[in-house]
Amino acid sequence: MTLGELAKRVGATVEGDAQTVIEAVGPIETAGPGAISFIANSRYSRFVETTRASALILDPDTPCTHIPVIRHPNPYFAYAQIVALLYPDQPQTAPGVHADSVIEWDVNIDESSRIGPLCHLRHGTVIGRNCQLVSSVYVGEDVQIGDNCLFYPGVRILNGSKIGNNVILHSGVVIGSDGFGFAPSEKGLKKIKQVGWVEIADDVEIGSNTTVDRGAIGPTKIGRGTKIDNLVQIAHNVEIGENAIIVAQVGISGSTKVGNRAILAGQVGLVGHIEIGDDVQVGAQSGVAKSLAAGKTVLGSPARDIMQAKRIEAALSRLPDLFKRVRKLESDEPKKSGD
Amino acid sequence: MTLGELAKRVGATVEGDAQTVIEAVGPIETAGPGAISFIANSRYSRFVETTRASALILDPDTPCTHIPVIRHPNPYFAYAQIVALLYPDQPQTAPGVHADSVIEWDVNIDESSRIGPLCHLRHGTVIGRNCQLVSSVYVGEDVQIGDNCLFYPGVRILNGSKIGNNVILHSGVVIGSDGFGFAPSEKGLKKIKQVGWVEIADDVEIGSNTTVDRGAIGPTKIGRGTKIDNLVQIAHNVEIGENAIIVAQVGISGSTKVGNRAILAGQVGLVGHIEIGDDVQVGAQSGVAKSLAAGKTVLGSPARDIMQAKRIEAALSRLPDLFKRVRKLESDEPKKSGD
Amino acid sequence: MTLGELAKRVGATVEGDAQTVIEAVGPIETAGPGAISFIANSRYSRFVETTRASALILDPDTPCTHIPVIRHPNPYFAYAQIVALLYPDQPQTAPGVHADSVIEWDVNIDESSRIGPLCHLRHGTVIGRNCQLVSSVYVGEDVQIGDNCLFYPGVRILNGSKIGNNVILHSGVVIGSDGFGFAPSEKGLKKIKQVGWVEIADDVEIGSNTTVDRGAIGPTKIGRGTKIDNLVQIAHNVEIGENAIIVAQVGISGSTKVGNRAILAGQVGLVGHIEIGDDVQVGAQSGVAKSLAAGKTVLGSPARDIMQAKRIEAALSRLPDLFKRVRKLESDEPKKSGD
Repeated sequence: MTLGELAKRVGATVEGDAQTVIEAVGPIETAGPGAISFIANSRYSRFVETTRASALILDPDTPCTHIPVIRHPNPYFAYAQIVALLYPDQPQTAPGVHADSVIEWDVNIDESSRIGPLCHLRHGTVIGRNCQLVSSVYVGEDVQIGDNCLFYPGVRILNGSKIGNNVILHSGVVIGSDGFGFAPSEKGLKKIKQVGWVEIADDVEIGSNTTVDRGAIGPTKIGRGTKIDNLVQIAHNVEIGENAIIVAQVGISGSTKVGNRAILAGQVGLVGHIEIGDDVQVGAQSGVAKSLAAGKTVLGSPARDIMQAKRIEAALSRLPDLFKRVRKLESDEPKKSGD
Repeated sequence: MTLGELAKRVGATVEGDAQTVIEAVGPIETAGPGAISFIANSRYSRFVETTRASALILDPDTPCTHIPVIRHPNPYFAYAQIVALLYPDQPQTAPGVHADSVIEWDVNIDESSRIGPLCHLRHGTVIGRNCQLVSSVYVGEDVQIGDNCLFYPGVRILNGSKIGNNVILHSGVVIGSDGFGFAPSEKGLKKIKQVGWVEIADDVEIGSNTTVDRGAIGPTKIGRGTKIDNLVQIAHNVEIGENAIIVAQVGISGSTKVGNRAILAGQVGLVGHIEIGDDVQVGAQSGVAKSLAAGKTVLGSPARDIMQAKRIEAALSRLPDLFKRVRKLESDEPKKSGD
Repeated sequence: MTLGELAKRVGATVEGDAQTVIEAVGPIETAGPGAISFIANSRYSRFVETTRASALILDPDTPCTHIPVIRHPNPYFAYAQIVALLYPDQPQTAPGVHADSVIEWDVNIDESSRIGPLCHLRHGTVIGRNCQLVSSVYVGEDVQIGDNCLFYPGVRILNGSKIGNNVILHSGVVIGSDGFGFAPSEKGLKKIKQVGWVEIADDVEIGSNTTVDRGAIGPTKIGRGTKIDNLVQIAHNVEIGENAIIVAQVGISGSTKVGNRAILAGQVGLVGHIEIGDDVQVGAQSGVAKSLAAGKTVLGSPARDIMQAKRIEAALSRLPDLFKRVRKLESDEPKKSGD
């Protein structure tokens, strides 16, 4: 495609030769002729003048004179569209149901959906249109799956899960395993039977080896458009709102609610039974033990308001010195009788 | 079942109409007619008066007048029994050995056990009575498995593992992968061959995608009744006692010993080669670098006695202010000659 | 083998009876007759005099009189060689390609390689010599795999990955899943198509259930000889150098570079877009938000120079007391007019 065609498709303008042919995207440091790159993080602006890419996607303010540029107020969003245009979706597996999969009775698969080999679909399962189960996917009893879902190899969906449309599950994801519930007794820990299920709304994506436990009673819920990274733990009866971002290795304990558009950075932990409001942002590795009102930004373990957390961090760097200053004050103090 | 029957089975008393029919359990906020709910956490007491459940399980002190109540000193334990009565175990897979599994020579499976499809059982393996390997379970060479075990889809048990009775392994659990052992040398890192194994005692449950490495030499051991949550890392030669509770995303480094009834909250890390005594409790996200005597409760990274950790946390909140107070003392200090 | 033969093979000397027959290795506390053990950590020196092992591997300085000893300046490295001699590699699966695996068209497997059952190899894949895919391994389209690789059950390698020689991937490892990239827009989060790949160099070992995402554009790279433990997250476009050690549950965010021989201890988190120099060491649970020059050793969240981190930790233990001292200074301060 030409740069002009790409720009038109993303509603942007071209600076320079709109006839430049673009065949690929590439990282700004290593992209070569025929590739387009972008800058969404000013850390990489230093590469603008030296890149060997044939074109760049830039915001209106970043100067660039030696190659053509697509100008867009949100270069990362423009890039998202352009990479999708240059790399159209390929089917991930062949049409039909592979003969080397095991399909139990009373399974309803729309004929437009594709089931690769070595899958196991249990009785009572319904799969909508245009789904792809690439390989070695397990779908338990009475699972409902919507349209346009893509499940990568090794996904396991346990009994009774309900999954919406356009859901992407990466390899090793487990949906609907038992929650962690035990009642102490004199004879040891008695398992609390986990009789709930998991509900995943439309447009959710879940990263590799992430685990989502079924509710103890009632559902564990993941809201529309929410994106979850790799190796995340979602405990029983957690409810996550819409368009939330849950970064890798986060752990959310049982019955906690997370609001819409909340962002939990990597390795964050939330205790159980709290409520995290809409638009809350939690910094990496933070530990949250109390509910947070909508819009809060917190950091640290235990998590504090980010401004306070940063003040404390700055103070900590000077803490050893503070001890010296107090010691000096003490030694300077005039002795009182009786001391 | 009627409320009266349920109460009798759990050795409890009914307040109100013992003939109330109970068909299900439900969360107190959303349960409807026919459902019983419970309160084990006072956070939820506010829902007692508004719940639409048909009955509740409560401790002797929580007031409730509008619906019948089962009174029990430990409502969570009573709930554990009642949910098991209302939802009897269903078989997780069909009887026999599925034709789409691969069973090598010299495999001894009790005829009461069920092996679902797409499993692979290696030579020398012994599987006891009433086990269920649901689907796509791998069992390596010379593995010993007791009675009544339940292994969910995608469990991998590597060569030589020894597994007791009533063990539940959730999807994606890996038992017996190599420990992380390398000796630095001039030519790089030389792998230390991991020639040990894993021993899992009776009544252990292990959550999804948790990994338990084999011993470097000798066993890695998980004691009777211990419960391990999702995404936990158990390194080589770790030994965990009985009835311990290991919450999600904990990491236990090599050769560390964890005592009976110890509780490690979420995302805790233990360094290698230490001993954690019986009944120790470690707060979420703590990092433990030293052995801990029996009964200790610790918090923080590095972990400290919980009372001290809380004093330090409280002090940290006032640390920026302390700097101001010291500055004021300094400015107030009478100048001495020579200053 | 006799102790003398073992010593000769590792270039070491024997103290005591070189004709002692050694059949196994064992932990120093529990090893019995016929076993050799070793001490690489002085914590275990107390067992030297009481061990029932038939021989020990010790450094030149640790005294031992009651049993024969192999003396070596690096006992752990000598042990690494001896355990490999006593436990020669066994094939992990039978020769050939198992009939219960699914091999697509245009797959090129060297005839010396072994493919166990329930594997799925996609078109365009090339597998070199003497590889072993034990069971239930997924290899996507156009994947290149070198010689002598060992992939345990449940490994998933997605499309376009490039894997060198002598690479060991443990159960549940996912190579080449999509990175976590989304552009906010008015309609929610738009997925950034991940069109890069993963490159794993020779002699890399990756632990169970670890995830390595493909580059967003261009590669994610893991350098020669690097060892990665279980449940680690490697995000898109991360580049790790040679002979690095990445301990369990570490998370490395997108586009971050990690130098040669760097050591990241357990549960460390690195933010994205930073550079960690050669030989950097990061203490357990640390959070690194800034680039680190070669050779640095850091600790804490946020990570600080280790000496400063330890000074701050020591100061924290005395912080509640510091408040008392300041309060005393304040109360002792002579009142000034106007106070």
